[in-house]
Amino acid sequence: MLIVKKFGGTSVADKERIERVAGRCIEDYKNGNDVIVVLSAMGKYTDELIGMAKDINDKPPKRELDMLMTIGEQMSVSLMAMAMNKMGVPAVSLNAFQVSMHTTSAYGNARIKRIDTERIRRELDVRKIVIVTGFQGVNKYDDLTTLGRGGSDTTAVALAAAMHADACEIYTDVDGIYTADPRLVPTARKLKEITYDEMLDLATLGAGVLHNRSVELAKKYGVPLVVRSSMNDHEGTIVKEEVAVERMLISGVALDTDAVRIAVIGLRDVPGMAFKLFDILAKKNINVDVILQSIGRGGTKDISFTVNKNDMDEAVSAIEKNKTRLGYEELRKDDSIAKLSIVGAGLVSNPGCAARMFESLYNENVNINMISTSEVRVTVLINEKDGVRAMNAVHDAFNLDD
Amino acid sequence: MLIVKKFGGTSVADKERIERVAGRCIEDYKNGNDVIVVLSAMGKYTDELIGMAKDINDKPPKRELDMLMTIGEQMSVSLMAMAMNKMGVPAVSLNAFQVSMHTTSAYGNARIKRIDTERIRRELDVRKIVIVTGFQGVNKYDDLTTLGRGGSDTTAVALAAAMHADACEIYTDVDGIYTADPRLVPTARKLKEITYDEMLDLATLGAGVLHNRSVELAKKYGVPLVVRSSMNDHEGTIVKEEVAVERMLISGVALDTDAVRIAVIGLRDVPGMAFKLFDILAKKNINVDVILQSIGRGGTKDISFTVNKNDMDEAVSAIEKNKTRLGYEELRKDDSIAKLSIVGAGLVSNPGCAARMFESLYNENVNINMISTSEVRVTVLINEKDGVRAMNAVHDAFNLDD
Repeated sequence: MLIVKKFGGTSVADKERIERVAGRCIEDYKNGNDVIVVLSAMGKYTDELIGMAKDINDKPPKRELDMLMTIGEQMSVSLMAMAMNKMGVPAVSLNAFQVSMHTTSAYGNARIKRIDTERIRRELDVRKIVIVTGFQGVNKYDDLTTLGRGGSDTTAVALAAAMHADACEIYTDVDGIYTADPRLVPTARKLKEITYDEMLDLATLGAGVLHNRSVELAKKYGVPLVVRSSMNDHEGTIVKEEVAVERMLISGVALDTDAVRIAVIGLRDVPGMAFKLFDILAKKNINVDVILQSIGRGGTKDISFTVNKNDMDEAVSAIEKNKTRLGYEELRKDDSIAKLSIVGAGLVSNPGCAARMFESLYNENVNINMISTSEVRVTVLINEKDGVRAMNAVHDAFNLDD
Repeated sequence: MLIVKKFGGTSVADKERIERVAGRCIEDYKNGNDVIVVLSAMGKYTDELIGMAKDINDKPPKRELDMLMTIGEQMSVSLMAMAMNKMGVPAVSLNAFQVSMHTTSAYGNARIKRIDTERIRRELDVRKIVIVTGFQGVNKYDDLTTLGRGGSDTTAVALAAAMHADACEIYTDVDGIYTADPRLVPTARKLKEITYDEMLDLATLGAGVLHNRSVELAKKYGVPLVVRSSMNDHEGTIVKEEVAVERMLISGVALDTDAVRIAVIGLRDVPGMAFKLFDILAKKNINVDVILQSIGRGGTKDISFTVNKNDMDEAVSAIEKNKTRLGYEELRKDDSIAKLSIVGAGLVSNPGCAARMFESLYNENVNINMISTSEVRVTVLINEKDGVRAMNAVHDAFNLDD
């Protein structure tokens, strides 16, 4: 078997944890497997590096910031190789140049284009454990790039795809994907399996153990993912294309409290208003989520939508700048809302699910502000203060603890 | 003009110093010059990295240690590029891969084989300051290497040679080469010029502002070196092939207190004993310096020599292991000695110089234990306690303060 194992910064934060991870990889190696390890920078080291940069230049050139940040993973991979060698197992660390990991040129947010597998194969052939820097790549100018959020997961999945690995294990601080966040829903249950699509919806909805970029890549190349804990030996959750038929209708409940609602009241009721409004936001690169349009009074209409908290100020000022063009009466914002979603491949063929969700919220006296659905998802907008209570109610209603 | 400027770790140890160095380079740039900057790792960062490695593996694989150590310079060059950009000047940092800096494969002690100049030229052509990682290279396996002691000086000189630079400026914490260590000899005077050969002897003899590898390289390719201080604007010392004819006989006095003397007493007086003895040390990679052979009593001979303090224990134990083979009577070691040398291109044609040195020591009542000479150098072994006094006496005898 060829196994790709990815460990995040927390898992390699100090000597003891590096040794624990080394031991874990060596176990697989000694069982006869080929092992590729992908690592993030130790602990909060990337943040420290960014701090050093900002201290010298509050707007550092992105190319130079990537040049600086990539040393973080080079540190963790070389120390890991030393730890494994100390334990008597041959290991070699490789950075983005040595792999080579080709990416687009976008510094700070590059995409992997192609991975040369020759060097890695050569090292595996002489029975070495190969330790690769996550999060980084090299662009066509021979400059170092970083992959942005969830970058090391993406590196692991891309490597697993390029090497045709038999498994890609993502080690995190939780031991798998749960039916709901176990810190908020005590009866939450760990899933044995989940589909890529469900995982994508969960990731987007704020229950993200995995970043959606890595899940999209895994889906595209059919890479079987396993999400496991670096702290224990529990089995984890498998993410794949199809899951066993006898499984439940919905796989999880997700709560996202990072959304805010913006309502544009009293827009003229003429064609093209929605286009004009969302075009303004798109040009600012602001992602709009749940959208609701309703008829207002006296030949007007209202449009409400949610955006991420971080984008609120920019969205509001962009709309206000275009007040004359849009001709609305009032702009309202509300940051005390939460998005509650159920996700499951079975939703599409079971229209009763949405009703069951609404019923459970009604029984708990939770008011629904907006509703949005996709094939594998139903999302409602509720008050933030009702969030955890609503989440538990829905979780119970679908017997997810079972 | 194309200028290569090298700054050591002390010169880039913190934000303020990085900014000072940036300002200094920008001055040359704004005067119309092409500027290449070579940097070491910040302050004691390389030592910190080695400490991290040893904590995980007391004998880390050299390949992985180099992989770890090279992040030090990558940190300083990217931060320097950010500082220059902040000051409004376009700058780009390049690591060993990006340059590319080809070396032999010897991890921890690699030699530069070849430097690709294309990328650097391209960046200079668009009027960028180019900041290159010192001390590191890439070998034929595409692995990172480090150059060992004095590595960043060597990088700077090699770059100056490859780029046919008009000047190679080495910035240190002293403002040039002195006729003697100014901390020990108050009357020491800064030299305007010195030849490569004299500099080589001074470097080897423990007065080393420059590592001899970089001086050898500069001599080989005729790179004009300037040694200057990073703390002030003083003129510094030029190191080159020939210096003005009207200069003095000797250019400097050097004191080395890092040597210890080992005496092998009562060796059989048969051919091949010296070979056997020094072959044993050569096989341990121990450098032997001043050697003296004298006739002992009763058909025996004594051989004394000096080695560096760090090599003493290994040298003694290697000789003791071969006691039967060498058949000596006694092994003595003395670590309270010092090596005092005069260096000067004029020595070869002025036999009176050695005599003048010995006379000044006699007047100061300093006992000479051993003597060794080369074309541009006279070295005597004296007691360590006499070192500074003897150095001042010799400095005065040659009127070096003049």
